[in-house]
Amino acid sequence: MKKFNIAIVGATGLVGEKICELLENRSFPYNNLTLLASKRSKGKQVNIGKRTYVIEQLTKDSFHNTDIAFFSAGSEVSKEYVHDALEAGAVVIDNTSAFRMEKDIPLIVPEVNREMLKVDKGIIANPNCSTIQMVMALEKIRKHFGIQRIIASTYQSVSGAGRKSMQTLKKQMTSNSDNTDEFSQDQQFAYNVIPKIDEFTHDGYTGEELKMIEETKKIFNDKEISISATCVRVPVLTSHSESIYVETKKKNVSLHDFVHTLKLMQGVKVFEQHDLPMPVDATNKEEVFVGRIRKDPNYHNGFHLWVVCDNLLKGAALNTVQIAECIVEDELI
Amino acid sequence: MKKFNIAIVGATGLVGEKICELLENRSFPYNNLTLLASKRSKGKQVNIGKRTYVIEQLTKDSFHNTDIAFFSAGSEVSKEYVHDALEAGAVVIDNTSAFRMEKDIPLIVPEVNREMLKVDKGIIANPNCSTIQMVMALEKIRKHFGIQRIIASTYQSVSGAGRKSMQTLKKQMTSNSDNTDEFSQDQQFAYNVIPKIDEFTHDGYTGEELKMIEETKKIFNDKEISISATCVRVPVLTSHSESIYVETKKKNVSLHDFVHTLKLMQGVKVFEQHDLPMPVDATNKEEVFVGRIRKDPNYHNGFHLWVVCDNLLKGAALNTVQIAECIVEDELI
Repeated sequence: MKKFNIAIVGATGLVGEKICELLENRSFPYNNLTLLASKRSKGKQVNIGKRTYVIEQLTKDSFHNTDIAFFSAGSEVSKEYVHDALEAGAVVIDNTSAFRMEKDIPLIVPEVNREMLKVDKGIIANPNCSTIQMVMALEKIRKHFGIQRIIASTYQSVSGAGRKSMQTLKKQMTSNSDNTDEFSQDQQFAYNVIPKIDEFTHDGYTGEELKMIEETKKIFNDKEISISATCVRVPVLTSHSESIYVETKKKNVSLHDFVHTLKLMQGVKVFEQHDLPMPVDATNKEEVFVGRIRKDPNYHNGFHLWVVCDNLLKGAALNTVQIAECIVEDELI
Repeated sequence: MKKFNIAIVGATGLVGEKICELLENRSFPYNNLTLLASKRSKGKQVNIGKRTYVIEQLTKDSFHNTDIAFFSAGSEVSKEYVHDALEAGAVVIDNTSAFRMEKDIPLIVPEVNREMLKVDKGIIANPNCSTIQMVMALEKIRKHFGIQRIIASTYQSVSGAGRKSMQTLKKQMTSNSDNTDEFSQDQQFAYNVIPKIDEFTHDGYTGEELKMIEETKKIFNDKEISISATCVRVPVLTSHSESIYVETKKKNVSLHDFVHTLKLMQGVKVFEQHDLPMPVDATNKEEVFVGRIRKDPNYHNGFHLWVVCDNLLKGAALNTVQIAECIVEDELI
C-alpha cells in the first residue's frame, strides 16, 4: 500500500498531539512524519508508537516532500504558511477558520458531506468543533425530515481555548478558594460561565456563534436553513455540550421516528429515556452522544436534544484524520 | 408601626439563612423571630443583627402567635406542616413547589404580578428560582410587545441543590485531580455539566423544566404562551444563568426598542454591547442581570438574551421577603 509523508503544523498543541496519536492508532499509511511547531518547542522529543520524533521549527521550507500537511496552529499561522505547503505540492487539511468559508474550499465532515470532498484547490477545511457535533447529530434528521430552523445554546469546555486555558482552570479549581480576586490576571473560568467565545463580530454575535451559523449552512449546502446560536464557556476541561432545538420541515414527525432516525447515523450514540450524555463520559470517546430527546410541548415539528462530544477528537483531530483517510481511500492523492 | 411575629422553617438552610439576613438588613418590622429546623439543628445558635437566636425543632405546635411563616425546607416539609401554621392563624409564604400550581394559591413575583397577591387562602407561593429570573427579564417585553414563545436553556449553580451539593463541588474542585473515579459516591459536579435537574416527569421533561413552563404561564396569566426549557447543572456555586430565545407577538420590534423596554423593569440591570453578565458578578447582588441582547438572524420578532441572577437572593430569599413586605404594605395582614 502506498504510504504518505505527513507534516503536522502545531504538533505540540492539544489537537496536534491527538492527530499524531490517531494517525498511529488508526494505522494511517504514513512514511515520514514531520512535527512542526513554533521556535519555542524546537528540539523537544515526542514519542509516537515505538518511534521518537524531534519537533522542528515551522518555516517556509518545512514542506519538501510532504504529501499531506495538517494545520492546527491557529488561523494566523495557516494564513501565513498554507501556501508554502501547497507550493511544495502537499494537500492541506486545515483545522483553523482561515479558509473555511472560502467558496471553493470544501468544508468536510465525512459522515455528513463526503460527496463534497475534492482536492483541486489543495485545501480541505475542517469545521469548528461546535459545528461538527451539531451537524453530526442532525444530519439524518435533515435528510429524512428536512430542517426548518435550529436554535443552539452551547456549554463549551476550556480545552477549546487551548492548553493554557486548561491549566488556568485547573489552577483556579484547585486553589481551594472561591475568592475570585486571586484570579484577576486570567479569565475566571472556575465557578463561572462566560457567555462569549471568540471575539464579537456584528449584530451582537460572536465569532464562535457565526461559525456555527455559517459553517452549518455550508456543510448542509442549504442557505435557507434558519440557525441561531449562543456560545458559552463552562468550567469543564474537555468535551462540549449543546442544548439544541430543531424544527423539522416535515410536520407531525413522531418522537419514535425522530429517535429512530437519529440512530441511523454512523458515529452518533443515542441515549434513550433517562440516560444522560455528559462531558466526563464523552471525553476520549469517538462518538457524538445525543440524549434528552423530546418533543417541544407546543410545536409539533419541534424537538429538543442534548449533544455532547469530545471537542479534541471528533470535534477536531479525529475529523481531520478521517478527512485524510477519505482522500487516501478515494485516491484523490 | 405594627410589628409581626415571624417563623422561619428551614432556618439553617442556604435560603433560610438569607431570609434571616434580609429581614434584618431591610428593616422588616418583626418582633419575635422563631427559627425552626430539623431535630439535627436543634439548639444551634445563630446571630442575626445584634441578637443571638437558638434553633428550635419544627413541630406541629411551632406556630403559636406566628403572624408570618416562611417555609423553605423542601416540599415534603411544607406539605406536612403548612396546615399547622395556617390553623395557628399565620400567613404562609412557601418557597417550595408544594402549592405553587394549586389554582387558588397566588404565585407571586412582586415586580411582575403583585396584583394577584391575596391572602384569603393563607398561602402565597414563591416561584422556582429559574422561573423568577426569566419572568423578571421578560415582563416588560410581555407587557409592551406580547410574547409568542420562549425557549430557555439554563446553566444552574449547585447551590440550587442545597448546601451539601456546594460542599461536594468544592471538595471535587479542590481535590487537585480530574480523575472522575474518586467522586463516584457523589454526583460529578466538577468538570462536568449534568442535563437533569429534579426528577424526570413525563414526555422526557424533568420537574425543573416543567416548573419553568407551568409557573411562567401562571405568573404571566397566559395559558397560550409557548414555553420550553432544558435545565442543566453547571459547576458554579451560586447564581443561575439562562440562554433565552423569545419571540414577540408584535412584528418588527427594533433591537433599540427591545433593549429600551427591558430597561423599564425595576430590579433588572441591562448590560449593553459587549458587557457580559456572569455568575461571579451576579452573586450577592439583588438585580437580575440581562445581556447579550440580539435579534435572531432569521426571525424578525425573535430575540436572544442571557439572564443571570443570584438564585439564593432574587431567585429565592429576596423574592420571599419582598412578598412579605407587600403583604404588610397592602395591609393584608
